[in-house]
Amino acid sequence: MTDHIYWKNGVLYLLDQRELPFRKTYVKCRTAGDVITAINNMTVRGAPLLGIVAAYGMVLGAKEVMAAKRSVRRADIARIAKKLGATRPTAVNLFWALKRMMEAFEGHAGDTDIVEDMLGEALAIHVEDIENNRMLSLYGAEIIDKGDTIMTHCNAGALATGGYGTALGVMRAAHEAGKKIKVIATETRPYMQGSRLTVWELMQEGIPVELVPENHAGLLCSRGVVNKIITGADRIAANGDTANKIGTFMIALAADAHKIPFYIAAPVSTFDKAVEDGGRIEIEERSAREVKYLDDRLLTVRDAKARYFGFDVTPSRYISGFITEKGIIKRPFAKYIRML
Amino acid sequence: MTDHIYWKNGVLYLLDQRELPFRKTYVKCRTAGDVITAINNMTVRGAPLLGIVAAYGMVLGAKEVMAAKRSVRRADIARIAKKLGATRPTAVNLFWALKRMMEAFEGHAGDTDIVEDMLGEALAIHVEDIENNRMLSLYGAEIIDKGDTIMTHCNAGALATGGYGTALGVMRAAHEAGKKIKVIATETRPYMQGSRLTVWELMQEGIPVELVPENHAGLLCSRGVVNKIITGADRIAANGDTANKIGTFMIALAADAHKIPFYIAAPVSTFDKAVEDGGRIEIEERSAREVKYLDDRLLTVRDAKARYFGFDVTPSRYISGFITEKGIIKRPFAKYIRML
Repeated sequence: MTDHIYWKNGVLYLLDQRELPFRKTYVKCRTAGDVITAINNMTVRGAPLLGIVAAYGMVLGAKEVMAAKRSVRRADIARIAKKLGATRPTAVNLFWALKRMMEAFEGHAGDTDIVEDMLGEALAIHVEDIENNRMLSLYGAEIIDKGDTIMTHCNAGALATGGYGTALGVMRAAHEAGKKIKVIATETRPYMQGSRLTVWELMQEGIPVELVPENHAGLLCSRGVVNKIITGADRIAANGDTANKIGTFMIALAADAHKIPFYIAAPVSTFDKAVEDGGRIEIEERSAREVKYLDDRLLTVRDAKARYFGFDVTPSRYISGFITEKGIIKRPFAKYIRML
Repeated sequence: MTDHIYWKNGVLYLLDQRELPFRKTYVKCRTAGDVITAINNMTVRGAPLLGIVAAYGMVLGAKEVMAAKRSVRRADIARIAKKLGATRPTAVNLFWALKRMMEAFEGHAGDTDIVEDMLGEALAIHVEDIENNRMLSLYGAEIIDKGDTIMTHCNAGALATGGYGTALGVMRAAHEAGKKIKVIATETRPYMQGSRLTVWELMQEGIPVELVPENHAGLLCSRGVVNKIITGADRIAANGDTANKIGTFMIALAADAHKIPFYIAAPVSTFDKAVEDGGRIEIEERSAREVKYLDDRLLTVRDAKARYFGFDVTPSRYISGFITEKGIIKRPFAKYIRML
């Protein structure tokens, strides 16, 4: 499950997630502009993956500058980073990766190939993400009991990361450890990441999975059929408030009302200590068209007004803990997040 | 907005709600079997409307028996009622109407036409529902403040009732009273009653409406843009626990977390005093296909498992009050529900 993003002969190959699970096609990115388009049009999504893709985008941008001007200056790199950073505001991993790529450029020694150096850093970001996922998944698997039914929202799997996954990584690790888990995946309107990506990923692994609309979380929690809920995150504030796919907050409320543990699985790169609390996280608003149409099929009155916010914020009081590659963060969150 | 169900020359005409808002076509029911099909295949839905449709179904069934046997016996009528009652288990209005029709049959005086008598009772159920909606809507409009933004789930409008509507009736009445309300309608997976029916109804009335996936309720409540939430109901237990369209409970949790008033608008026929609490309300499970496909379009892996429960139960502690044709029921609910 790591063939969904790879670099080959100077080209970034991205598995087109809009076409899954029906077709496995790749989008080839040869320029930073191609990467920006792929992020904007949802060819790729998922906070950790956006960071990795943006890092490769910086490499492609540097290559373009080098080809045109025979040298790359800091201002060129900063301009490319700014454009890549303007794509999607909520996932902090994107900005974290851009910052790391800027630092790699700045730390560059004059006698090496700058584009190669930057590619090395992008590959490092990619490989480290997979390693972090595997590590956090091992920590996470420890809190899973044999026979647990775990609910998840959206897709925090291999496809949302460099590989292996965060929330789904925990489920993979628990499954591999023989814990005989079952997963309930929410379909996740309007993009159906649950229906299209999470169900597909888990079925490939042979992990039992049932699909439900996310409006089922309240009923299923009230019936006692859900033992734990684990989702990914797009940005975690210093106090533990967590931005994630729209609907996560309501699922956390359903968990809280029934005393079901609700965990966030995310690498340390998803924590944004510079943001004090969730109220300061920018929530992306996307086109109304995405709610009014399913692909080209109109779902409502043609000139209806609609809104679509991509994320919501779950206040930290509804969160049982954070599963990271450094271990599981328990309360008081602010104290332990500060130490990351 | 009362042309969505009418009786003409011995035929029941039902506006096909599966085709809205794209096409206005009618399904003609000439037999009780036609009515059963129309209920099962979602030509019609909505708790009060199901009661009215079932009442007309009893008339058609009695007509069939009369044509075949020249007389109608109690056993014939009971058999038809049983079949109509086996369609959908959750909405109590269906059983309430069937009981009323049984009583109309039993109270029949020998010298009148039994089919005509039963048609009279079905028409009375239909007309009373519209009157009750208008009355409860006037009560409901009193709690609406000028400029309120009101969220609703699914469709509790004219289309879900004999006419005018319950939750949407309250909004109509508030709008007619010049309160300048705005409505946020949730799309309501998987049938999209919000996208297809509620948006359409409100736009026809010139009431401002915005469509969002129901996973937005948490975010929108947290931002303070929602002043009140009003939904309909399919069955209300003696203690006030309320079964309604799946997802209602989670929206009520979002309201509760932000101290936003959450009201149920429903006629007295939706209260089921025989059911002690919500745990005893049967929740209909429908075909997995309805989650896996949008019409004929596959949304997930072809052999994925999926579940679809049509309703959930909102515990009475999350409900601010019940808007009925007899006034607004406040706490203690059990006491006032007993008095209905």
